[in-house]
Amino acid sequence: MESAIKTVVTTFLGSAKGKDNLDGGSFQKLVKKQLGGMMENANVSSAVKEMQQGLDENNDGKVSFQEYLTLIGYLATSLSERKTGSNADAS
Amino acid sequence: MESAIKTVVTTFLGSAKGKDNLDGGSFQKLVKKQLGGMMENANVSSAVKEMQQGLDENNDGKVSFQEYLTLIGYLATSLSERKTGSNADAS
Repeated sequence: MESAIKTVVTTFLGSAKGKDNLDGGSFQKLVKKQLGGMMENANVSSAVKEMQQGLDENNDGKVSFQEYLTLIGYLATSLSERKTGSNADAS
Repeated sequence: MESAIKTVVTTFLGSAKGKDNLDGGSFQKLVKKQLGGMMENANVSSAVKEMQQGLDENNDGKVSFQEYLTLIGYLATSLSERKTGSNADAS
């Protein structure tokens, strides 16, 4: 579990390359490379851009670490709902 | 990264044992077993209880999945700040 949290953090930091946030291009790459199996439309640039705008609470056109954590939270919640919604699903 | 998100979800679901939330005892166990290396005082029951109360936004005495995600977010933020605060730290 601790390594999972570390992975979430280092994935962001690796993509941000020393900056505090991800610009649009870095966010596209992160989503396509890291979340393609979990998110529909991860390969559709326009969909990822729209999602980015939805996350961008401070409207600076970039994805901060907190905005990124919001996305991770959404994905975790969605996965949890899928798992608890069908107990027969052993995946 | 996707497996990290899955680990976060399945850790909660495994501790909740079919329920929607963690009671005090389950939360203590989860923190001690899974987060002892990352959190100070994970082995101090009174400290974990205090943390649980801090997370318990709806004051039902239990830790919901969203409240648990809040904790994960805190830990991720703390780790990120430690990593970016000292760039010489390669851990």
